[in-house]
Amino acid sequence: MPELQLARRDALRAELREADVAALLVTDLVNIRYLTGFSGSNAALLLHAEDEQRTVFCTDGRYTTQSAAEVPDLERVTDRKSAAALLKRAAGQVGSYRRVGFESHHVSVESYHTYAAIAGGIELARTPGRVERLRMVKDETEIAALRAACAAADRALADLLERGGIRPGRTEREVARELENLMLDHGSTGPSFDSIVAAGANSAIPHHAPTGKVLGPGEFVKLDFGATVDGYHSDMTRTVVIGRPADWQRELYELVHRAQASGVAAVLPAGDLAEIDKAARQVIEQAGHGEEFSHPLGHGVGLQIHEAPRLAYNAAGTLSVGMTVTVEPGVYLAGRGGVRIEDTLVVRESAPEILTLSSKELVAV
Amino acid sequence: MPELQLARRDALRAELREADVAALLVTDLVNIRYLTGFSGSNAALLLHAEDEQRTVFCTDGRYTTQSAAEVPDLERVTDRKSAAALLKRAAGQVGSYRRVGFESHHVSVESYHTYAAIAGGIELARTPGRVERLRMVKDETEIAALRAACAAADRALADLLERGGIRPGRTEREVARELENLMLDHGSTGPSFDSIVAAGANSAIPHHAPTGKVLGPGEFVKLDFGATVDGYHSDMTRTVVIGRPADWQRELYELVHRAQASGVAAVLPAGDLAEIDKAARQVIEQAGHGEEFSHPLGHGVGLQIHEAPRLAYNAAGTLSVGMTVTVEPGVYLAGRGGVRIEDTLVVRESAPEILTLSSKELVAV
Repeated sequence: MPELQLARRDALRAELREADVAALLVTDLVNIRYLTGFSGSNAALLLHAEDEQRTVFCTDGRYTTQSAAEVPDLERVTDRKSAAALLKRAAGQVGSYRRVGFESHHVSVESYHTYAAIAGGIELARTPGRVERLRMVKDETEIAALRAACAAADRALADLLERGGIRPGRTEREVARELENLMLDHGSTGPSFDSIVAAGANSAIPHHAPTGKVLGPGEFVKLDFGATVDGYHSDMTRTVVIGRPADWQRELYELVHRAQASGVAAVLPAGDLAEIDKAARQVIEQAGHGEEFSHPLGHGVGLQIHEAPRLAYNAAGTLSVGMTVTVEPGVYLAGRGGVRIEDTLVVRESAPEILTLSSKELVAV
Repeated sequence: MPELQLARRDALRAELREADVAALLVTDLVNIRYLTGFSGSNAALLLHAEDEQRTVFCTDGRYTTQSAAEVPDLERVTDRKSAAALLKRAAGQVGSYRRVGFESHHVSVESYHTYAAIAGGIELARTPGRVERLRMVKDETEIAALRAACAAADRALADLLERGGIRPGRTEREVARELENLMLDHGSTGPSFDSIVAAGANSAIPHHAPTGKVLGPGEFVKLDFGATVDGYHSDMTRTVVIGRPADWQRELYELVHRAQASGVAAVLPAGDLAEIDKAARQVIEQAGHGEEFSHPLGHGVGLQIHEAPRLAYNAAGTLSVGMTVTVEPGVYLAGRGGVRIEDTLVVRESAPEILTLSSKELVAV
């Protein structure tokens, strides 16, 4: 849908005029995908601040057919050195490009020196994070893709539980692999990050790569995983118990569950990022486990698995309608086990829309 | 094996003295893994040019246990902002660090400005590609990992063929998924890149992402895939025919097979990179298909799927014993079909060691 990408480019143009640049040289491939729809592995975009007609896209010969289909609405240039080619072109029209912005948070120092040599009389201006800022607020097409990615993960977990896939004797690695295969069955193009399956004491390691550890009776099993649909990522964590939960497990689960609900309830337009983190964190702190919730509450999610904004004690800013964030408190008791519960949600007017719909009641498998 | 990493750091130290820097700030995670063995997602290393004892490693609190196990032999500092923390430390000892090199081909312009503000009186010197240059020549431990990764791919393909996995009625996507699952069965920790399975006319697209296209009788099926073992990547392409090959298919296959053998035979110590490309390319050019071999002959492979050196018409330099490269000529007849045959090999004294051992005879499935 080229209209969507055009609307995004128009929104960016307004920002560029404010930054007093004649154009922005976009070189980050995720940002290029967002602004043009192009999904290949080499491209650059010179987005003109005033005139859509003077915006130029460049990729190499491998992508001639693909770029014609994905970016039908922009002038396309073919060159292996895509960013350099567009700068060279601009340098040939120095009068119209006095100052050009570049993505200084992505461009390496070496690339910058190459660009500067090509740019000639054009001033290259550091303009970091402009596209990322726009990307924070999702449109309904993006939210539909995120919803589909969350649904693929939900269905995969439901299948896994139904067929008894989480049982004593299996390894963490086997469970992770089955979960990833089930997500593919439900329309995922691939895992949105390295799946975490962590059993027993391993569940107390916040980021644990699946091992050959065998699942045992009475253990927590923490599953943190996601699917990818149309380039958009889902992110969900559920923690289950094998067999009958012990009292400490029920209590720990109940605590994290309450903290998560408190965090979710705070996800509202104009909500302060640090205050949302606090809404969940204070539930855990009041129970005396503050030290054992050792990471931020959540993060934005979209074309990348980790995007702005961050929900953290030291984050500055507020939420807006259409932002998508995770809410994922956890408490990790070293050597014993840990619980994390995580949803992906959309900021809506009066209450967040939760995209990950798997049950958050304690499941005994 | 910390001795291996120590030997690599010693080799780098010799280069640093030549570059006239007191230390190198290493921030690329692949380079850090190579130099220290650390496999986590946040780290920096300040490698002292004279004194191993003054070399410092930094990661954040999530990796305390892991870094103690993986990097037992270096002083370890814990800080979320790993590069900044090490620079701050060096800035406190300005007398000993007059000039510090940084990886200017990886560090963004924004990060550079952050570093420069911290560095105070220390001069930050652009020293791109130093570790990558060392990484070109593999030691026997690295070659053993590459061999294991190639073996996982070989065995997966053998299983797939044996169970009749490539047959009319299946989709490209189904074949790719089975191949990736079989590699996991044989010890891969994950595909070394997005697998290519391209049938019929799609086989004429050099880089084709698997689709729902159904494999049909009489079609070429091109499979380009790899496994990962201990962080090292394998890379192999085979092209098969479904059913009895037509004459044009036999001829095309035979041509690419001859070109590949010619390229492999040229992989020798001191071999000129452009000449090796030519050795394969001229076979294809003499048959009148030069235009349809539209990419370089090969590339280095190791901790990354694409590394230096490149085997290409415009590459400068020569091979050395211990370098690992792919040799992968292809001829692509638009709308009809294409053939690529690719091996991963090690440069040895008198003849290359081929790590991918699957048959290169034309297989009819």
